[in-house]
Amino acid sequence: MPRIVVLSGGVGGGRFVRGLAEVVDPAELTVIGNVGDDLEVLGLHVSPDLDSILYGLADLGDEERGWGRADETWHALEEAARLGGDAWFRLGDRDIGLHLVRTDALRRGEPLSAVTGRLADALGVRVRLLPATDDRLRTWIQTAAGDFPLQEWFVARRHRDEVDGVRFEGAETARAAPGILAAFGDARLILIAPSNPYISIWPILAVREIRDSLERRAVPCVAVSPIVGGKAVKGPADRMLARLAGGTAPAHVTQCYEGLLDALVIDEADAGSVDGLAVRTIVTRTLMTDAPAGRALAEAVLASAS
Amino acid sequence: MPRIVVLSGGVGGGRFVRGLAEVVDPAELTVIGNVGDDLEVLGLHVSPDLDSILYGLADLGDEERGWGRADETWHALEEAARLGGDAWFRLGDRDIGLHLVRTDALRRGEPLSAVTGRLADALGVRVRLLPATDDRLRTWIQTAAGDFPLQEWFVARRHRDEVDGVRFEGAETARAAPGILAAFGDARLILIAPSNPYISIWPILAVREIRDSLERRAVPCVAVSPIVGGKAVKGPADRMLARLAGGTAPAHVTQCYEGLLDALVIDEADAGSVDGLAVRTIVTRTLMTDAPAGRALAEAVLASAS
Repeated sequence: MPRIVVLSGGVGGGRFVRGLAEVVDPAELTVIGNVGDDLEVLGLHVSPDLDSILYGLADLGDEERGWGRADETWHALEEAARLGGDAWFRLGDRDIGLHLVRTDALRRGEPLSAVTGRLADALGVRVRLLPATDDRLRTWIQTAAGDFPLQEWFVARRHRDEVDGVRFEGAETARAAPGILAAFGDARLILIAPSNPYISIWPILAVREIRDSLERRAVPCVAVSPIVGGKAVKGPADRMLARLAGGTAPAHVTQCYEGLLDALVIDEADAGSVDGLAVRTIVTRTLMTDAPAGRALAEAVLASAS
Repeated sequence: MPRIVVLSGGVGGGRFVRGLAEVVDPAELTVIGNVGDDLEVLGLHVSPDLDSILYGLADLGDEERGWGRADETWHALEEAARLGGDAWFRLGDRDIGLHLVRTDALRRGEPLSAVTGRLADALGVRVRLLPATDDRLRTWIQTAAGDFPLQEWFVARRHRDEVDGVRFEGAETARAAPGILAAFGDARLILIAPSNPYISIWPILAVREIRDSLERRAVPCVAVSPIVGGKAVKGPADRMLARLAGGTAPAHVTQCYEGLLDALVIDEADAGSVDGLAVRTIVTRTLMTDAPAGRALAEAVLASAS
C-alpha cells in the first residue's frame, strides 16, 4: 500500500522521485504532479511535469538536456514549423507519440488521472503518479508586462519578466484527482520535492482538498529546499523567492509553505543561514548531479523523517 | 487564370497531376482532391489523397514506397503504439507534422480548403489544390462482412473483402468547396485522373454541385483509365470493376462515368478491347513508371484534347 506521498514539479522533482523509487518499494510511493503548466500546443495536450516524472522513472529521459526524451528526433516539429504551425514549445517525435495518445484519450472523455495511469503502466512505472487534479487548472504569471500563461512566460519569454505574483485559473473549483485524498489518509510521510514553490508546488496546493489534507495531516510533512547556496539549481526559483519572499534563505522557502511543514531539508551550503527558521532543519547534500546523488538525497530525507 | 480542372485521387492521380504541372503552367491547374478516405487517427485529421497530391507536387513524397514522405522516421507512431495508441495507419514523423498543423487549424474552425491552400503555399506548390468539399464526406465500403470506413477496409483489412457497393456518408448535404464551381466555369478542359473510379472519383462526384457542373459542362471532359492490360496498376480497381461493372475493359471504365465523359485515354495494352465504347478513345502509354512517363502521359492527354 502506498505510504509516502510526494508533491512534485517536473525536472528537479522528477529526479528526487526517481531517487526515492530506488530506495523504497516504488509501490509505496504516490506522486502528485503539478498540472499548472500543462498546455495545448499544436492541438496536443502536453503535461510537462507529469512527463518529466514519467520519463525519469521509466529511464527514458534525456539526462543532459534535462527535459524530454533521450534519442529524440524533431522531424514533426520541423515540418509543422515549415507549414506555419507553432514551434516555440520544443516537442520531439517520441514525445509527440505520448502527447497524441493522451490528447486523443482526453478528447474521448478519459480523465487525465486515468490516462496518466495507463501511460505509467505501459512504461512499466510502478510508482503511482497522479495529476493534482483532473480539472483544468492553469498557472498564470503576473508581471509588469502583463499576465502570461506559465509556459509562455517560461519558454517563449525565457522567464525574463520579473514576477509580481502567480494565480491559478480554475483552482476554486478544481477537485483533487481520484486517489489523492485516500493516499493522504494512508500516508506515513508527506514529502515536498525540491521544486519551485511558486510554479510547481503552489499550483498543487491551490487545489483546496489537497491543501486541507496537508493542513490536517497526522503525519510529518518534509520539504526539500530547491535552493543550494542561495541559488536555484535551475530556473527562476531564486529570483522569485528574492522578489516575492524577500530572500533565498531557508526561512524564505518555509514561508512559501506556512503551516504545512514539519521539517525542511537544506543543502550544506545553506546551513549557516537558518536564522528565524520555525521548523526543524535537516542538513545534507541536496544537489542531484547524478543518480547516486538522487538516491543519497532520498535516503537522507527518509532517514531524517523516520 | 486556372483553365484546367482535374478530379483526382491520391497516388496515381498525384503522379498524373505532377506530370501535368510539368507541361503546363501550374497556375493553370485546379485539382479537386478526394476527401472520402479522410480519417481521424490518434486524434489527427488525415487527408491521404490531398497529401499524396501535395507531397508529389512539392517533390517530398517517397517514390519507392508510393505514399508518405521521403526521408521519413516513425518514432512518434512507435511510441504511440507502445503506449496503447492506434498504429494500424502508418504515420511518419514528418507526415505527422503536417497533420498536427491541419488538425489544429480545423479545430479552430478553419475550413479544409483554406488549410489546404496554406499548406500548399508553405510548400511552394503553385497548383491550386481544393478538397471536393469542406463538409464531412466519408466513403463506406459495403461487403458481406459488413460496412467499413474506406481506410479500415483498405488498410486495416487490406481490401480483402469483395466490394458489393460504396456509399458516401454526408454527400447529400455536402457543398463543393469554395472556388470549385468558378473553376468549372472558367475551365477549357476537365480531366479525370487515372484513379480508382469507385473510391477516388465517385466520392468527388457524390457532391451534387460537382456532378451537376460536369453534367452541364460546355468543355470536354477526358478521363484517363486506371487500367493497363485489364489490370489495375495498384490497388483493387480491377477487382472492383470486374465485380461492380462486369469487367475491366475500357467500356467498363466509362460506365462508371456515364454522361460525364467525352473521351477516354487508354493504354496501348487495352487498345484491342474497345468494343461497345460510346466515347472517343485516345490510345497512349498510361503507365507512369517515372516522372518522364508522367509528363509524356500528360502531354498525350493535352494534345488529344486540344
